[in-house]
Amino acid sequence: MAGARKSGEFGLIERFFRPLSRAAPGAFALGNDGALLKPPAGSALVVTKDVMVAGVHYPQGEEPSVIARRLLRVNLSDLAAMGAEADSYALGLALPDDVGDAWVEAFAAGLAQDQEAFGVALVGGDTVAAKGPAVLSLTAFGWVAGDACLTRAGASDGDDVYVSGTIGDATLGLRAVRGELAGLDPADCAALAERFRLPEPRLALGMALVGVATCAIDVSDGLAADLGHICEGSGMGARIAADTVPLSPASRRAIEVGEAAIADLVTGGDDYELLFCAPPSARGAIETLGNRLGLAVARIGAVERGEGVTVVDADGRPLTLGRPGYTHF
Amino acid sequence: MAGARKSGEFGLIERFFRPLSRAAPGAFALGNDGALLKPPAGSALVVTKDVMVAGVHYPQGEEPSVIARRLLRVNLSDLAAMGAEADSYALGLALPDDVGDAWVEAFAAGLAQDQEAFGVALVGGDTVAAKGPAVLSLTAFGWVAGDACLTRAGASDGDDVYVSGTIGDATLGLRAVRGELAGLDPADCAALAERFRLPEPRLALGMALVGVATCAIDVSDGLAADLGHICEGSGMGARIAADTVPLSPASRRAIEVGEAAIADLVTGGDDYELLFCAPPSARGAIETLGNRLGLAVARIGAVERGEGVTVVDADGRPLTLGRPGYTHF
Repeated sequence: MAGARKSGEFGLIERFFRPLSRAAPGAFALGNDGALLKPPAGSALVVTKDVMVAGVHYPQGEEPSVIARRLLRVNLSDLAAMGAEADSYALGLALPDDVGDAWVEAFAAGLAQDQEAFGVALVGGDTVAAKGPAVLSLTAFGWVAGDACLTRAGASDGDDVYVSGTIGDATLGLRAVRGELAGLDPADCAALAERFRLPEPRLALGMALVGVATCAIDVSDGLAADLGHICEGSGMGARIAADTVPLSPASRRAIEVGEAAIADLVTGGDDYELLFCAPPSARGAIETLGNRLGLAVARIGAVERGEGVTVVDADGRPLTLGRPGYTHF
Repeated sequence: MAGARKSGEFGLIERFFRPLSRAAPGAFALGNDGALLKPPAGSALVVTKDVMVAGVHYPQGEEPSVIARRLLRVNLSDLAAMGAEADSYALGLALPDDVGDAWVEAFAAGLAQDQEAFGVALVGGDTVAAKGPAVLSLTAFGWVAGDACLTRAGASDGDDVYVSGTIGDATLGLRAVRGELAGLDPADCAALAERFRLPEPRLALGMALVGVATCAIDVSDGLAADLGHICEGSGMGARIAADTVPLSPASRRAIEVGEAAIADLVTGGDDYELLFCAPPSARGAIETLGNRLGLAVARIGAVERGEGVTVVDADGRPLTLGRPGYTHF
């Protein structure tokens, strides 16, 4: 935490963050110029990095522990999409002057909670003072055996398209956080908001898909857009059936009361579910895998020659999809 | 560059940054959720991360190419301090709306120039829009054989203390950038400013010191403070002789004209020279090494039992050192 020394007011950060490095001897208790990570024999490193800005990627008043956990989870989701086993992470924090001890302590407590849940440790980083909104950067590290990671490239004509969990909850959850779902039951709003605030990185699924799936991505830009990234990466097109896209009970009710349309849910972002493709011969294995993990995995369409993503309704008619909007609180 | 997709105005960034990833196949042309880095056989990963904020770590009007190169070099210097071979880096950029194409293009051009100089490649990252000043985060990756990296711990009683290059130029350079060195020749001011703006990461020296030095750190907080970090990490004290601290001709002249005192130079930060310790038996090897690299390496003092750093003048009297100030443009 080199910068913490420069800005004296952040000396406390070392106090709150150092305990988060305990499980990683190569973190040198955050008291070194960098960290040392020893690769498991025969493995390669997977690295991913995401940046969050206060007021853009989370509301200014969000609980610090939730901000921390969301930042970590979003990065772990990228590791999951590559089939990596999560190992550790480094933090880069630019914090405004009005961020006090209590905020930092709660932020660190959120990290501690999720470190325990996902088996990762803090190995280093930098904390600096900044005017302007907080800017939080996290770099996550994971390992894959050999170089067998999943990427967005590799989908073949005839592959099935799958997605884990349910789709669209996060975009509705974001609207719930903003108080924009007046027509929906408060309990549903709360459930959707939680899905936005604390996505679930599908690490076990990602690891199990190595050697099974032909490609994978996590749903951050929206189901349709992310499938588009797979299509672009693979030189293919894809067609999915809207009525096979898995929805939560709350999202179904949002559609019923007219607060959302299916097109909103397949274009909404931030679900952090895994979207992947696999040949039809893998159907049994994927069903077994979903059962073993206790995680719904839905087959929602197929890869085809061509380019771009077509979402069809129950009558086979293509839906008109808007582009995902720009998020700003 | 996940976030670049979300904020449409930064689509251009992919265009400027993708070429920087060409030398790294595991970067997947920045079109994946993360990057894959294959460790050389038997090696461990060294990771370091630094964050820079516009107006804090560099002046708002600084040339974008210099900002980029400085950001990269500061991180490479941390790799050097651990004795690692530099491999690659990931970027996290939060850029205000008024940053246009030309700024990003020049920033990327600076990275391209230094990638070539230091043999590294961009492997991923994230770019987001932010209100407030630009916040630039860089995570650098390097490799060491086995787990033989240098750390701040390991100095023993009787070790010599060494430093590379010259000390104090950067703190004077910072004052030159601010126009605060009116008493000094403009050519000297320009030379000192360059030392602040573009530090030289001592990668070859760092790698060569593995197995020779007992500990190392790069001088970022200032010579005295960073030697203090070594002392703290090693459970030792240290004494250095001010008149053996290597100074550039420009810094000597700054002292002569009364613009600086030696105490300012040994407490000023941002030199990014390597400060390290080694037993007296290594004196010959270190002299040979400096000659081979064409880099001055000065022996400036010794490790001793106790704690803290004492800087003595030519008469053996301890200098009174101020604390390094907080930098803000």
